Amino acid sequence: MAPGKLRFMKQLRVTVWNEFVHERQNSEVKKIYPEGIHEVIANGLKAHGELDVKTATLQEKDQGLGEQLLDNTDVLLYWGHAAHDEVSEEAVSRLQRRVLDGMGLIVLHSGHYSKIFKRLMGTSCALRYREAGERERVWNINPGHPIAEGIGDYIELEQSEMYGEPFGIPQPDEQVFISWFQGGEVFRGGNCWFRGSGRIFYFSPGHEVYPIYHNKQIQRVIYNAVRWAEPRGRRAEVPLHVAVEDAPEKISARGTILHDKKGKLKG
Amino acid sequence: MAPGKLRFMKQLRVTVWNEFVHERQNSEVKKIYPEGIHEVIANGLKAHGELDVKTATLQEKDQGLGEQLLDNTDVLLYWGHAAHDEVSEEAVSRLQRRVLDGMGLIVLHSGHYSKIFKRLMGTSCALRYREAGERERVWNINPGHPIAEGIGDYIELEQSEMYGEPFGIPQPDEQVFISWFQGGEVFRGGNCWFRGSGRIFYFSPGHEVYPIYHNKQIQRVIYNAVRWAEPRGRRAEVPLHVAVEDAPEKISARGTILHDKKGKLKG
Amino acid sequence: MAPGKLRFMKQLRVTVWNEFVHERQNSEVKKIYPEGIHEVIANGLKAHGELDVKTATLQEKDQGLGEQLLDNTDVLLYWGHAAHDEVSEEAVSRLQRRVLDGMGLIVLHSGHYSKIFKRLMGTSCALRYREAGERERVWNINPGHPIAEGIGDYIELEQSEMYGEPFGIPQPDEQVFISWFQGGEVFRGGNCWFRGSGRIFYFSPGHEVYPIYHNKQIQRVIYNAVRWAEPRGRRAEVPLHVAVEDAPEKISARGTILHDKKGKLKG
Amino acid sequence: MAPGKLRFMKQLRVTVWNEFVHERQNSEVKKIYPEGIHEVIANGLKAHGELDVKTATLQEKDQGLGEQLLDNTDVLLYWGHAAHDEVSEEAVSRLQRRVLDGMGLIVLHSGHYSKIFKRLMGTSCALRYREAGERERVWNINPGHPIAEGIGDYIELEQSEMYGEPFGIPQPDEQVFISWFQGGEVFRGGNCWFRGSGRIFYFSPGHEVYPIYHNKQIQRVIYNAVRWAEPRGRRAEVPLHVAVEDAPEKISARGTILHDKKGKLKG
Repeated sequence: MAPGKLRFMKQLRVTVWNEFVHERQNSEVKKIYPEGIHEVIANGLKAHGELDVKTATLQEKDQGLGEQLLDNTDVLLYWGHAAHDEVSEEAVSRLQRRVLDGMGLIVLHSGHYSKIFKRLMGTSCALRYREAGERERVWNINPGHPIAEGIGDYIELEQSEMYGEPFGIPQPDEQVFISWFQGGEVFRGGNCWFRGSGRIFYFSPGHEVYPIYHNKQIQRVIYNAVRWAEPRGRRAEVPLHVAVEDAPEKISARGTILHDKKGKLKG
Repeated sequence: MAPGKLRFMKQLRVTVWNEFVHERQNSEVKKIYPEGIHEVIANGLKAHGELDVKTATLQEKDQGLGEQLLDNTDVLLYWGHAAHDEVSEEAVSRLQRRVLDGMGLIVLHSGHYSKIFKRLMGTSCALRYREAGERERVWNINPGHPIAEGIGDYIELEQSEMYGEPFGIPQPDEQVFISWFQGGEVFRGGNCWFRGSGRIFYFSPGHEVYPIYHNKQIQRVIYNAVRWAEPRGRRAEVPLHVAVEDAPEKISARGTILHDKKGKLKG
Repeated sequence: MAPGKLRFMKQLRVTVWNEFVHERQNSEVKKIYPEGIHEVIANGLKAHGELDVKTATLQEKDQGLGEQLLDNTDVLLYWGHAAHDEVSEEAVSRLQRRVLDGMGLIVLHSGHYSKIFKRLMGTSCALRYREAGERERVWNINPGHPIAEGIGDYIELEQSEMYGEPFGIPQPDEQVFISWFQGGEVFRGGNCWFRGSGRIFYFSPGHEVYPIYHNKQIQRVIYNAVRWAEPRGRRAEVPLHVAVEDAPEKISARGTILHDKKGKLKG
Repeated sequence: MAPGKLRFMKQLRVTVWNEFVHERQNSEVKKIYPEGIHEVIANGLKAHGELDVKTATLQEKDQGLGEQLLDNTDVLLYWGHAAHDEVSEEAVSRLQRRVLDGMGLIVLHSGHYSKIFKRLMGTSCALRYREAGERERVWNINPGHPIAEGIGDYIELEQSEMYGEPFGIPQPDEQVFISWFQGGEVFRGGNCWFRGSGRIFYFSPGHEVYPIYHNKQIQRVIYNAVRWAEPRGRRAEVPLHVAVEDAPEKISARGTILHDKKGKLKG
């Protein structure tokens, strides 16, 4: 591109949400993430300078997923594993509505089995898994995709949890990464979906007993994903009843009418 | 193709489910569908001779959606409008699991707002609507698609309810029909999705105050959709924990292990 | 499903096309495929009894791709490697038109670089490759897909040529298989696309120095693909000029007109 | 979003290419576009201030599509109608390679039948058409999409050429607009595809006898599309032969080898 110019940019407001359970309960995990996974991820994002980054956890008011926090969130990152069942249906419904209205959502690793991911996908989100500290190679199959920017042919993780196919998801709208595992499996581990006006990215690496979120390339993918998931356009203003006299083309009503003037089903 | 031959075909077991409310409550609807919408649809399917067709309604045992019935259903057709809220969460979960395991699902008209459709799509499923008895022209945009077999350039419905964009759905995996409305709107009204091992078709025409399911071309689309939605292959046998010694390639476990031998997270 | 019934089935006419070069030139390949790859594939298909199977090769009249042969072909299988450049542009154009009009096309292994595949994809169709006789594991990621019918979790090939990502294709409309390689790569090796009224399946295993097409599971995938690729519906009858008086809704022409009555651009 | 901040932005280099035939030959078209369609589109883009915009036409050196110009183009807009056949195969191949390597491409109106669009799509790109100066309503079916930013429910064009379904394209990767026509047809007129590392947007309005490119909303869509089509990531560095000793995992070669050390097929 040509020599650039300064331009006024909106500042993305990013919230890193974590159930924050294993880092407090398991001494091995605590060694790797003493302040919690969310802090390591948040610090990786803050290092870029231009994002407004905060964190939230399950232990906070409204499970860290209250309306006020969401009012101030453009992109939410979600990490959960042991406490999926504790997240309330109300919180999940709030999240779903926000995503459909345009909020970006980055679901990480074991978040594949979170209520919000299953809610948005409509499928089992189940997978094959094995915890053996084996080697994973995350292949960049889409080098022109913004989420792959700055990533080479692959990211190699010396120790990882195997996630394998079949993965119970709708076919991704955009496929960015597919993983190879030492034990013999493959996995669609970097996947994009559009739902309503929101963008969703699922990224599989991140088992908590390995220092995966300290890896600079993993951090780069997460940063790229946040930028990609920025809300665009606007939410759809529907359901919307259109009165006969408001039709774009002039028409007259004919036949039986089951709805009242406001579009509610009568009696 | 070449002159054919006789071949042994499995017989598809089809269930036409209807909430069966407006046909009993509204005299105009009753005139058009005296035995209920489900009977007209079922008769259209039976006329082809090779299907095993039955009906079920919300008023029956287990809301007409019990395990035994689903055990004997390859493809389910679903019509609902006034009573979406009355369908139990348990019934919806049963339906969802069956679809993911391979059962075909045909969602008709106002079923766009049913619990099961919203559950499988993960989106609002909202739309723009107007009840004015206006003309609809259902364009066949995919003449090579099996669901469009036998259908010309379009199906013209002299009276229809307008359903308009934006329609709050994930982009269809296959787009078959798009409708034009006299009042000036367009609508993606014939859409296919794959979810788990199941096939889903949404078809928008069918407002109950017009004799739309008596239309031979509409009946043909529904028949085609039933054949298309036939279960194939098998369901995915996941979630599946793979023990280290069962990895396809020989590996040894390394590092911290959070799961027990059966793959459950340890206390 | 319920106990079946006899039904009259059209008989699919299948042509297995092969450039037939390496089997004649290389003694190792000849040992594995003495009559040519096409004969082994054709025999695998004939064993099912219900298909009308013939073969054709580059050495035949019209390069084995003449109009008469295509008039009698519902699904074409295509294997090429050393002689892609020898296939004429005219033959490629014939094939492309046939596919868009509804003929199924199964492109095998090194056919990823054939003119017809590149023509239909519009992309580079390039990939990463290595010929080391290494192990390949073809994972079934879509067990409900008709092309995966009868296939378990994966097909293991003790010796295979590595094909790796990024694969220069449009994202598949349906993803059925993804391969794992011993040397560390992954590959989207079983992919479906819809183009015009035709169905295309690309299947990557099949390097000619290994007996891959003798493998019963590979044969099963190819048989499934042939059944899946059966022509449905009809071709699109466009381009189509619509005269003003033939518009579905009554309108009158207004303003400057650049086209003549037949829709040709005027002088 | 939060109050913004200044940020260093790369400046996109945009080329508006036009065959520039009808504006010189037809007096009615000349009245609407005295300097050519390209100048009106370019001026609309320049008004935003941050783009580096130039124009090129078929009459220029290398048909206005030479290597040097493409070296300095991030996004190319393409308008053609009467002279598709005059564009050389070499120019088309250059354009295709550039798109696959990451250049954005916006194809306008009758460009649906250009060689480059047909090359990239692999399909007929044919459609139904009628020139009657009828009303078109371009519905925004994807309000959260960046190309729909700032656009309301629809754009109404009082006079337009009808383009109708079936449109001979691969199903769009993202669907943004669908048009309604007064004469009774519908059309997928705002469609996105990803090919290689490049982004392609087709936008149907723009018949040259109506002042459509003077419309502010049409100009806004084109500006949004240019921003959306910005190159991201990088091109795929394949085809790539991987030597056995360069495999990510240590393996040894086994069996017959048809390729030489550089990956070329041996004689």
